[in-house]
Amino acid sequence: MRPDALGVVGLGAVGGSIAWQASLAGVRRVLGYSPSPAEGVAALRAGAISDFAPSVRFLVERSEVVVLATPPTTTFDLLPTVARHLRPGALCTDVVPAKGRVVQAAQRAGLADRFAGSHPAVTLTAKTFAAAEPAAFRRALVYVTPASGDEGPAREVADFWATVFDADPVILDAADHDAIVAWTRHLPQVVAALLARACATDGPRGVTYGTEARDVTRPALATVATARDLLLLNREAVVTALDDVETALGGLQRALRDGDTAALDAWLTDAATWRRRLEP
Amino acid sequence: MRPDALGVVGLGAVGGSIAWQASLAGVRRVLGYSPSPAEGVAALRAGAISDFAPSVRFLVERSEVVVLATPPTTTFDLLPTVARHLRPGALCTDVVPAKGRVVQAAQRAGLADRFAGSHPAVTLTAKTFAAAEPAAFRRALVYVTPASGDEGPAREVADFWATVFDADPVILDAADHDAIVAWTRHLPQVVAALLARACATDGPRGVTYGTEARDVTRPALATVATARDLLLLNREAVVTALDDVETALGGLQRALRDGDTAALDAWLTDAATWRRRLEP
Repeated sequence: MRPDALGVVGLGAVGGSIAWQASLAGVRRVLGYSPSPAEGVAALRAGAISDFAPSVRFLVERSEVVVLATPPTTTFDLLPTVARHLRPGALCTDVVPAKGRVVQAAQRAGLADRFAGSHPAVTLTAKTFAAAEPAAFRRALVYVTPASGDEGPAREVADFWATVFDADPVILDAADHDAIVAWTRHLPQVVAALLARACATDGPRGVTYGTEARDVTRPALATVATARDLLLLNREAVVTALDDVETALGGLQRALRDGDTAALDAWLTDAATWRRRLEP
Repeated sequence: MRPDALGVVGLGAVGGSIAWQASLAGVRRVLGYSPSPAEGVAALRAGAISDFAPSVRFLVERSEVVVLATPPTTTFDLLPTVARHLRPGALCTDVVPAKGRVVQAAQRAGLADRFAGSHPAVTLTAKTFAAAEPAAFRRALVYVTPASGDEGPAREVADFWATVFDADPVILDAADHDAIVAWTRHLPQVVAALLARACATDGPRGVTYGTEARDVTRPALATVATARDLLLLNREAVVTALDDVETALGGLQRALRDGDTAALDAWLTDAATWRRRLEP
């Protein structure tokens, strides 16, 4: 599905990339909105957008597809405005990397049958338009989550990602999506920080940690505010996954306290077997 | 301290390296013992030893310094033999990477005033004599742990490492040593396996894990038997360190359940600050 008029709210790295690629892919009118006029000018100059919209309402009223490429809180705040001004037959999606809350907010705003959430699993080098890359979504995994029992809007949004961005969309329930990112992205980050936090609080001072400690704790280097926002956004799924980590920890503690070689072997073997199936 | 006659029990990678470097450094007589005649022949051919001893007793009776470069269980078993046959004024040390139990075993064997534990913090490519490297200990950290209140034997053993091997010995209580390696070596391994084990047991199937999960779980690839032996050998210190990991996990779970942004920020910031002080 290739809209004739696309509206992109937020012209940072993600929104800028979306607008830019749509323009390159032949979408006739690409409206962009940003609270920063400088970002709007940069997007116009690059040819990423055809119109710099004076307001979100102006943009929504003129678009067949509206993409909210804004931070999570802004996305939640904008959904009622989108619901009020979206044209008949037009669709809205977003790019927040946890979907349960966004889908609920869309339902509350009365957008359920005109909304599907998106999560492009893409990492850009920075947050501003300067880091926008039109090819960012080519062959990239994009999760698309329905907001109602009717999968129609999700199928259209998935087709939009495939047609305009050459992406690989996957339609998935919001709860399944959130569990998957809790395990694949948030849990590794949190377990890395877990070791670092324990070392910071209770570890010996003035000692040298080796390659293993550096590998295990590397994701703890991520920006705290970003990590915190993502964890809070997906906290139900992360809390559930952390309960499973707690169970695994309990098993290890028991095996070690009891000096139970067989239990320890089984525990370590499960871990090693799972790890060998990943790439190095 | 450079002995005139050194005895090395075990001619694998570590014992082989020790014997070989001692020979190169001008120790007049280097006796080696191995249960494997082939390993003895290889060590003789390489010039790593001057004599292949027919028994541990033969070796102990003729050495000024005896190094037990054997697996932990063998080391424990050999200490009474060493105690029985060690010459007056001679010293014994070992290379087991956890020291509390070895030091206790030396005390039980009546060796306390003629023993100091060693832990050369060196990783060799394999276990056999073929992987021996005379230069393996040059500038390497070697922990030396006293077996009694008298630090005399530890100082002599430390000087032996510095003089013959050009190593950097550090004298440390066995309990402090074991806590340090629990934190710096065993805990990273165990936390890596903790994430892998939780993923293996409770994680979603058929999903793609990214760079972060691969980094965090990499140490779980270590050989299970080796990891298990090291953990059991140092289990008191590892169990204590794991209690601190459990506390850190509890703090994170509470902050997430309560949606406590300030607590989550503090938790993540401690982790990030600690990590930034390590090398990349």
